[in-house]
Amino acid sequence: MTVRYKLGCELTYEIKGPTVFIFNLEVAKLRRHIDLVERLTIQPDRPLRTYTVPDVRNRYFSLEAGAGPLELRYEAEVTLDVYRADPATIRETPVAELPLDIMPFLLPSRFVSSDRLAAFAQREFGHLEQGHSRVTAICNWLYDHIDYRRGASNEQTTADESLLLRAGVCRDFAHIGIAFCRALNIPARFVSCYAYGLEPSDFHAVFEAYLDGRWWLFDGTRQANLDGLVRIGVGRDAAEIAFSWPFGEMEPGKVQITIEHVDGSPEAPGRTTDAISTEEPAPNAGAR
Amino acid sequence: MTVRYKLGCELTYEIKGPTVFIFNLEVAKLRRHIDLVERLTIQPDRPLRTYTVPDVRNRYFSLEAGAGPLELRYEAEVTLDVYRADPATIRETPVAELPLDIMPFLLPSRFVSSDRLAAFAQREFGHLEQGHSRVTAICNWLYDHIDYRRGASNEQTTADESLLLRAGVCRDFAHIGIAFCRALNIPARFVSCYAYGLEPSDFHAVFEAYLDGRWWLFDGTRQANLDGLVRIGVGRDAAEIAFSWPFGEMEPGKVQITIEHVDGSPEAPGRTTDAISTEEPAPNAGAR
Amino acid sequence: MTVRYKLGCELTYEIKGPTVFIFNLEVAKLRRHIDLVERLTIQPDRPLRTYTVPDVRNRYFSLEAGAGPLELRYEAEVTLDVYRADPATIRETPVAELPLDIMPFLLPSRFVSSDRLAAFAQREFGHLEQGHSRVTAICNWLYDHIDYRRGASNEQTTADESLLLRAGVCRDFAHIGIAFCRALNIPARFVSCYAYGLEPSDFHAVFEAYLDGRWWLFDGTRQANLDGLVRIGVGRDAAEIAFSWPFGEMEPGKVQITIEHVDGSPEAPGRTTDAISTEEPAPNAGAR
Amino acid sequence: MTVRYKLGCELTYEIKGPTVFIFNLEVAKLRRHIDLVERLTIQPDRPLRTYTVPDVRNRYFSLEAGAGPLELRYEAEVTLDVYRADPATIRETPVAELPLDIMPFLLPSRFVSSDRLAAFAQREFGHLEQGHSRVTAICNWLYDHIDYRRGASNEQTTADESLLLRAGVCRDFAHIGIAFCRALNIPARFVSCYAYGLEPSDFHAVFEAYLDGRWWLFDGTRQANLDGLVRIGVGRDAAEIAFSWPFGEMEPGKVQITIEHVDGSPEAPGRTTDAISTEEPAPNAGAR
Repeated sequence: MTVRYKLGCELTYEIKGPTVFIFNLEVAKLRRHIDLVERLTIQPDRPLRTYTVPDVRNRYFSLEAGAGPLELRYEAEVTLDVYRADPATIRETPVAELPLDIMPFLLPSRFVSSDRLAAFAQREFGHLEQGHSRVTAICNWLYDHIDYRRGASNEQTTADESLLLRAGVCRDFAHIGIAFCRALNIPARFVSCYAYGLEPSDFHAVFEAYLDGRWWLFDGTRQANLDGLVRIGVGRDAAEIAFSWPFGEMEPGKVQITIEHVDGSPEAPGRTTDAISTEEPAPNAGAR
Repeated sequence: MTVRYKLGCELTYEIKGPTVFIFNLEVAKLRRHIDLVERLTIQPDRPLRTYTVPDVRNRYFSLEAGAGPLELRYEAEVTLDVYRADPATIRETPVAELPLDIMPFLLPSRFVSSDRLAAFAQREFGHLEQGHSRVTAICNWLYDHIDYRRGASNEQTTADESLLLRAGVCRDFAHIGIAFCRALNIPARFVSCYAYGLEPSDFHAVFEAYLDGRWWLFDGTRQANLDGLVRIGVGRDAAEIAFSWPFGEMEPGKVQITIEHVDGSPEAPGRTTDAISTEEPAPNAGAR
Repeated sequence: MTVRYKLGCELTYEIKGPTVFIFNLEVAKLRRHIDLVERLTIQPDRPLRTYTVPDVRNRYFSLEAGAGPLELRYEAEVTLDVYRADPATIRETPVAELPLDIMPFLLPSRFVSSDRLAAFAQREFGHLEQGHSRVTAICNWLYDHIDYRRGASNEQTTADESLLLRAGVCRDFAHIGIAFCRALNIPARFVSCYAYGLEPSDFHAVFEAYLDGRWWLFDGTRQANLDGLVRIGVGRDAAEIAFSWPFGEMEPGKVQITIEHVDGSPEAPGRTTDAISTEEPAPNAGAR
Repeated sequence: MTVRYKLGCELTYEIKGPTVFIFNLEVAKLRRHIDLVERLTIQPDRPLRTYTVPDVRNRYFSLEAGAGPLELRYEAEVTLDVYRADPATIRETPVAELPLDIMPFLLPSRFVSSDRLAAFAQREFGHLEQGHSRVTAICNWLYDHIDYRRGASNEQTTADESLLLRAGVCRDFAHIGIAFCRALNIPARFVSCYAYGLEPSDFHAVFEAYLDGRWWLFDGTRQANLDGLVRIGVGRDAAEIAFSWPFGEMEPGKVQITIEHVDGSPEAPGRTTDAISTEEPAPNAGAR
C-alpha cells in the first residue's frame, strides 16, 4: 500500500552580511520515493550549487545571499512506498557479515559517544534476544525512561548528557537509540524527515538500524508513524544532519513545515507493528 | 623527486574467543603511491573480506579468528611521489566554492568538537592572513602550546580535553589542529600513515586541510617529515581511523612498525618548507 | 580612607506551591564592614531562620513561602574600611606554611576543575615571579583572553568550559581565575558582593587569593573597583554561592540591586593599584 | 555492643625533591570512638603541623620531606560504639527544618554533579516512600546497576561518568549515592574509613546521608559491614578526602592497611539491618 504526500517548508532569514547557506531539506531521491514532483522557490533568486550523495541520496544545495531578507519555499509531492516485513523474521547481522562500507555506523560520532556506553547497553539490552525486537526494546526503553521535553537540550547536547538528564527532543531520542545500537555492534544512523502526524508540525528526527542486510526505521519518541516518514537525509548524527548550515551573519526567522495526504490517497494506517524500511538493500550487501 | 620506501608492520594477538577483526593498515591505493608491491601474511591463514573506499582509497580487510595466537605481517614497497607547491601560492577555498562532498570535514566529529571552539580559534587565528600559512600558524601554535607526552591521553580523549591538558600524542595534536581548521571554516581530516624518521617507530597520525582545491598535509608534532609520510587512511578523526578494530575477546601483543629507504633511493630531504600533498585534486572540484 | 555605602536589593517571586528559600544576600559581618545598619522586609511576613558561618561570616536566612507573590527588600548602610598594601610586598605563602584549615581552597570544586588545569596554569603562569603580581597577571590574562558576554554561560558552566569558549560573565571569570590559582598551589575562593560602579547594577562575583597570610581581592573582568566591593559571601565556587536557593515551585520576578555613596562620603577613588583585602588575617595564621 | 579494633597503615614514598605532604589517615576524634590509643611513626623523623576540623573532627597533619625514602606507620586501637536505630523510625528531614550549616551537603561538588541528575533521581527514587529506606533503595540500585570493577575509574572520574560507565570502585559508588541523595534534597557526604572485613584490605569510602537530625552510614558496594567502619574523614566528595596530598616530586610506594578485632573483643556481627550512625547529632540541630 502506498500513500501520496504533499509536503514542504517555508524558511525566512534576515541576512546581515554575505552569507553562504547549505541546505538539506529536499526529499531524498530514493527508489521508494515515487513520482516525486517538487518546486523550490528562493526570493530573491540566487544561483544554486547542488550535490546528491551517492547511495544514500541526501540532496544538498548551496547559495550565497547578500544583506536583506531571504525567503525559501520548498513544495513537493511524493508517493511513499514503504517496505514492510514481519519483525520476527529480522535477525541481527553478525559483525563478520557486515558490509565493510557500513562500518562507520558502528563507530562513535560527535553526539553519539557509544564508546562510553558499552557497559550501559550490555546491562540493559545485552541479555535480550537478538533481532529487530531488540532495537524495539531500545525504543521502548527510551519511551519509558526519557521525557520528551522541548528546551531540555541544545544543539551541542550529546547522547551521554541526554541519558543523564533523562529528557530531550527527537534528536536526543535518536542519539541515545543510535548509541545503544552501536554499543551492541548494531550499525545505526540518524535520519531527518518530514513526518506525517507530528504535532506540532516540524522537521523530525528518527534513526535507522542495520539488521539482516538492510536499514530499518525506529523512533523512540512515538510522535509519528514509522510508515509516514518521508526521508530527507541520513548521517552519523545531528552533527551531519541539519536542514540548514549558514556561514555568515544572519538571523533565522520563520520555520514552517507541512505534510498532508494528497486527496484521494488511501487513509494512512494507524501505528504499525510492521518493520518498516524505505531504502533498498545494497545489491551486493553481504557479498563483499 | 621520488623516494622509494620499504615498510610494514607485525601485529600479534592472543585470541580468547571468536573474534572478528577489521584492519586498516595497508598503504592507500593513491595515484602518487607508485609501484606498490606488498605481501600480507596471516598465521593461521584465514579467509579475508576486503573493501576499498571510493575516492580516498582507504583499504580495509576483515577476518574471523578462533582461540589461539594470531600473527599478522604486512610488508610493502612503494615509491612516494609527493606533490609540492610554494605555500605562499595556496589560498583558502571560500565556503561558497567548497565542493559540497567535502562539507563533512567542516563539521564536528567525535573527538573534534569544533562547534565549541569557534571563539577560541577566532581569537588565536582569526586575524591571520588566510592561506596555507594560517594552517602552518596553527601547527606552530600546537608545537609551542602543547606538550608531546606519552600517556597524557587515552582512546577517548577529545580535542577539547587535550587543549585543556596542554599535552597529548600525535592523535591529539591532529585533533586540535583539525578542530581549529574546522572552526575557521577550513575543511580538515585525520590521516594515519607510516612516517619515515619517526622515533620510536610507530603508526603516526597527522592531518590534512583542504585549501585551494586540494588536501595538504600538516603535522603539529614535528616528529617526522611531511614528505616522508606514506598514507594508510583518512577520516573525520581517530574514531574512524584505527589500524585494528577487534570485535571479541582477545589480548593485543606486539605492534612493530618499520619504514626505511630502499637501497639506491635518493636521500630523503630534510624538513621541507614546501607545501606537501599526496592526493590529486578531484577532477571536478569546484565545478559541483 | 573609608567610604560609606547605601546598598540593597529587591527581589520578587511568584510562588506556585510551598517553597523553602535560603538566601545569602546580606552584607557579611566583617570587622572592616563598619557601622552596618540594615533592614530586611518580606511581604507577606514570614518567620526566618538565620545562620552566620563562623570565620567567614556569610549570613543565611531561610523562610517558607506559600502560593502567591513574595517580595523581599534588603536595605543597608555600611562603611567599608578596606585594607591596602603595596602589591610588591606581598609574597605567596608556601604550601608548607599554609594554615591547614585553608587547604579546601586548594582543592578542585564543582565549577573549578583545577585538577585538570595544572599543565595549562604552569605553561602560562609557572615561570612568572611569585607573589601578588602573579595573580594580577592571571587577571590580566583573563581580561585579554576571555570575552565578557552575557548569555555565554549558564548556571552549570565550569571553568574548563569557559576557558574553551573564551567567553563568560563575572562568575566564569572568577572560576577560571580560581582554577589557575589552585593549580599553582595558591588557595583561592569565590566572592559574591555588591559592587560600586558596576554597570548595569547587579550582584557581582570576584575572587580572593590567599597570599602572605591573608585573602586578597581580584577581578579579571575590570567591571568594578576592587575597593568598592561590599562582600556578601565566600565559598569554594558558584555552587556554594548564590543569593537565593529556592526549593519548591516558583517563578523568579524582579532582581534589582542598588549601591551608591552616602552623601558627604568622600569620593570613591578611581581604579586602585593597591592590593585590597577586606578580611583580617586569622590571628593564628601560620602558627597552626 | 561495642567492638575494639586494632588498625593502621603503612605508607612509603620515594622523595625526589622537597615535598610537602598533608595526610588525613588518623582515626577521627569522635565521641563514639572510645579509648583511642595510637602511634604515628615517621622515618626519617620530621616536625609535624596538625589540625582538627571543628565538629566533624577530621584530623590532618603536614610535614616536609627531603629527597630519599619516607616511611610512615600509623597504629591505633579504638573501641567503636555505633549508634543503632530501627530504619523504619527514621524520616527524612524536610528542607524547611535542615540546620543551615548542613546546606553545603545539598549542593553539587567536584565529583558529584547532582545539579545535572535531578530528573534521573526523581525518575528512579522520587516516588518511593521517604525515609531511611529510600536511601537504602538507592544503595540497592547501586548494587544492582553498577559493577564494582577496579580500574574502571581514575581520580578525576565524576558521578556522571560512573553512572554512564555503569562501573566503578568504592569512591564512585559513594559519589553516585551522594548525587542521588542531594538531587532528592537529602544532604549527603563522603566518608573515608578503615573497614573491617574489606577484602583486599584498603582504605574504604562510603557515604552518609542526613536524616531525622543525624548522619547515617550507607554503602552501595556491600563490601564491608556498616557497623565495622572506623571513620577517618568526611567531606563533600573525594576532592576533599584523600589519605595523602603530596605537593612536590615523589613516587608513592607501599600502601598497606590493616584492621582486626582486638583479642577478647566480642565477635563482630554479620551484616546488620540496623540503621547505623557514628556521629552524635548536633546539640542544636533543628534549633538554628
